[in-house]
Amino acid sequence: MEYLIKEKTVSQKKLVTSRNISKDHFIVENTCEYAGQHILLDLWNVKFDNSIKTLKKIITECILISKATLLHLHLHRFGKSQGISGVAVLAESHISVHTWPERNYIAFDIFMCGDTNPELAADYLTHIFQPKKKLLKKIKRGVVKVDK
Amino acid sequence: MEYLIKEKTVSQKKLVTSRNISKDHFIVENTCEYAGQHILLDLWNVKFDNSIKTLKKIITECILISKATLLHLHLHRFGKSQGISGVAVLAESHISVHTWPERNYIAFDIFMCGDTNPELAADYLTHIFQPKKKLLKKIKRGVVKVDK
Repeated sequence: MEYLIKEKTVSQKKLVTSRNISKDHFIVENTCEYAGQHILLDLWNVKFDNSIKTLKKIITECILISKATLLHLHLHRFGKSQGISGVAVLAESHISVHTWPERNYIAFDIFMCGDTNPELAADYLTHIFQPKKKLLKKIKRGVVKVDK
Repeated sequence: MEYLIKEKTVSQKKLVTSRNISKDHFIVENTCEYAGQHILLDLWNVKFDNSIKTLKKIITECILISKATLLHLHLHRFGKSQGISGVAVLAESHISVHTWPERNYIAFDIFMCGDTNPELAADYLTHIFQPKKKLLKKIKRGVVKVDK
């Protein structure tokens, strides 16, 4: 899959040039260490067939692209034609998803620590769902300032 | 349990006076509707025995306090004396937790829609873990402006 290969190449370049990873998987950058990036991604007017099978495939691809490791995946459908809620627990934290088909709205959060690239997962979700409107917030979790 | 009873009473008062809930569980306040509150909570120097049993009990209590409904709970330990990662999938979204015992640090996120009170869950976690340092961020998810 061309998209995957391209993004993985970008990811590896970014990681090599910008940061180091501590033994306990914190990210070390200049004057701070932090546990990981937490991305909150709201997607509106998406292209999505409202199927658990599709969502499982997309989340699995996100995990591959961002170089994370899946430990446990659970997706719950609330009822026929209703929303889906679920979470992938990762060796590097988690991805959650909640869908509101009646509003054509999907809420993701992507929290990854260690040698991963959650931004590529967010890019991939935007690429796949083609939202007409999106809102992305990035928050560093567990920030510790380091004296140099 | 006095803490539970007290907080539940506060919760009910808050909900009655400040907002309405739409049929698809969005929260309706003055000039906006939104899916729910997403709370990111970093706790440092916590009192915690690093046990899955304790964490399961605390998360279950959080869900009760905030008037949410548990659908699925999965907690994963990475190894003896190592961290725990896990998620509770709720009828109203999710609670996630990631612990770093080597840093005495715990990262929670609490995302709840509908007729719930995630702030009480965050208050309860602070009460139980007694962190020497904490960082709490609240983000409204799925915000829609409404013309009046």
